Amino acid sequence: MNAQQNRQVLLAARPVGEPKTSDFNLVKTDIPAPGDGDVLCRTIYLSLDPYMRGRMNATKSYADPVEIGSVMEGGTVSRVISSKNVSFDEGDIVVARTGWQDYAAIPGAQLRKVDPTLAPISTAVGVLGMPGMTAYTGLLNIGKPQPGETVVVAAASGAVGAIVGQIAKIKGCKVVGLAGSSEKCDYVTNELGFDACVNHRNSDLAEQLSQACGDGIDVYFENVGGIVWEAVLPLFNMRARVPVCGLISHYNATGLPGAPNRVPELMFKVLTHRLTLRGFIVRDYDEQQEEFLSNTANWLKDGKIRYREDFVDGLEKAPEALMGLLKGDNFGKLVVRVSPDPTS
Amino acid sequence: MNAQQNRQVLLAARPVGEPKTSDFNLVKTDIPAPGDGDVLCRTIYLSLDPYMRGRMNATKSYADPVEIGSVMEGGTVSRVISSKNVSFDEGDIVVARTGWQDYAAIPGAQLRKVDPTLAPISTAVGVLGMPGMTAYTGLLNIGKPQPGETVVVAAASGAVGAIVGQIAKIKGCKVVGLAGSSEKCDYVTNELGFDACVNHRNSDLAEQLSQACGDGIDVYFENVGGIVWEAVLPLFNMRARVPVCGLISHYNATGLPGAPNRVPELMFKVLTHRLTLRGFIVRDYDEQQEEFLSNTANWLKDGKIRYREDFVDGLEKAPEALMGLLKGDNFGKLVVRVSPDPTS
Repeated sequence: MNAQQNRQVLLAARPVGEPKTSDFNLVKTDIPAPGDGDVLCRTIYLSLDPYMRGRMNATKSYADPVEIGSVMEGGTVSRVISSKNVSFDEGDIVVARTGWQDYAAIPGAQLRKVDPTLAPISTAVGVLGMPGMTAYTGLLNIGKPQPGETVVVAAASGAVGAIVGQIAKIKGCKVVGLAGSSEKCDYVTNELGFDACVNHRNSDLAEQLSQACGDGIDVYFENVGGIVWEAVLPLFNMRARVPVCGLISHYNATGLPGAPNRVPELMFKVLTHRLTLRGFIVRDYDEQQEEFLSNTANWLKDGKIRYREDFVDGLEKAPEALMGLLKGDNFGKLVVRVSPDPTS
Repeated sequence: MNAQQNRQVLLAARPVGEPKTSDFNLVKTDIPAPGDGDVLCRTIYLSLDPYMRGRMNATKSYADPVEIGSVMEGGTVSRVISSKNVSFDEGDIVVARTGWQDYAAIPGAQLRKVDPTLAPISTAVGVLGMPGMTAYTGLLNIGKPQPGETVVVAAASGAVGAIVGQIAKIKGCKVVGLAGSSEKCDYVTNELGFDACVNHRNSDLAEQLSQACGDGIDVYFENVGGIVWEAVLPLFNMRARVPVCGLISHYNATGLPGAPNRVPELMFKVLTHRLTLRGFIVRDYDEQQEEFLSNTANWLKDGKIRYREDFVDGLEKAPEALMGLLKGDNFGKLVVRVSPDPTS
């Protein structure tokens, strides 16, 4: 790579179903020049997250779509190369939404400094970043887990699910995970300390989940949908809460599933069991940023929260890695190493 | 009718689909004798409500099913015939859950006295009773309507919907109703003061609703389901709230609808628009009984809330009237006159 150029991964085409390599385009451009108040950042780590699939569609989900020919969006941990903003100095480590590229010049107001003494800086897009805060805010504000309750977490070895389950354990809950392989399930129970974990690829998923949740389900943190949702639905207790965070099993769908239409079944459960379903995204809770960071850093330090990162080397590998993420190929928080980490 | 006997309507068989006459059985028994602490009540008005269909099924919904051979459940306005409870005197008007029968002897603790000076006593099972309180508590606690927001109410001429919409108007909202005939729609706009009302039997329901809700939907009070839900779903604004109160269009269903399975569509809307769906029943808010009664009585007095009752004469007509209610044949709160009203 030529350090004097900026590599960018652009959205080349809107995927139909699973994204493919030709939906992305790697280009080289000049390194941008920062204007007044701007900071020139070089990407160290690029976070890959399921929501990115939604941004590749033409329809607005939370946010506007990425335009064809634009740089793919994404959170990064970056190093300040030069600054025209008094709040930032060369060498600062920052977290930014600079996307799938080597360099970006952006207003300092859009950056948050990373404290490299808290944890490895890659965690600023993981357990101490957007995924961790998604877990924290969704579970505590919507899930409201009470001691002794049963909390079920889909994608339990993933960036968000792993943190949801560990916070639920800290709050005194029984925690049951769902994950996509026996290796992941072993990790979830042995390393993360969940009480049980069910492989959602097992043909008897519903029965296994029912057995693991002997007292029913009080909180279900939804980030999967599909067959997992169908296995969870019959097990809800009265007044159960469902933070709806993601629906990864549907992101590559090109249409709705076939018969029967299970909406009435869902609505009857909401009605008779007084369920609360609530969608959210992390920025709904921006004001809880400091509280989240302080609590989670302490839990990390005390060993009450553990995390696992799945590193991919090279910006050019990002498209393939995102395709894999959508199929559950990753094991832990998926992060692309874009340039050397000066702190490690 | 022999006043010395107690007529009862029993559940004879569990309906498959629409209830039919043979699912009920009218019998005569002795008038029960009150024990210590009990009150012997004679039914004046029997309330017929959609939830009763659920109690006829074998499966538990909110509450246990009515057993085959048992008296159909229901709320009544009754007169105290004799009392072995110091809190009640002969001639008192009470509201009770004594079911589809002329007489019942029940503990005084299960009765609530009705103040006949507030409004006609039949309203104690209507606007000033369970349906009114369902509207009040569901709308205010879950819907949380804000001035200027758009509130959509299904079954808008019904016992609950009519009150939901009028309270939403009091709270400064734009209110759009849905009802099953042009006559009902006229009533909803002309008499109840809703801003608009769409006939849900129109083939272009979705388009008409969309036109009536030019600023989208902030609160949808769900008591219907089915095609109404499908018309509402695309119109939700960010952070809309959905009190789930009932699903009358599905109560007679014998299975789930056909393809496609619209659960992912629903869940995506919850996710991307941060919807809140919450099921409830009125007794979740028992502690708001006095507040509800006081506010609603004042609104009635001030002419801010109007109501319409649809009377059916004779206990023996109750089965047929319930069958009609489930098809939307009633126009206003459905009440069976079981014995003469001594206050009118």
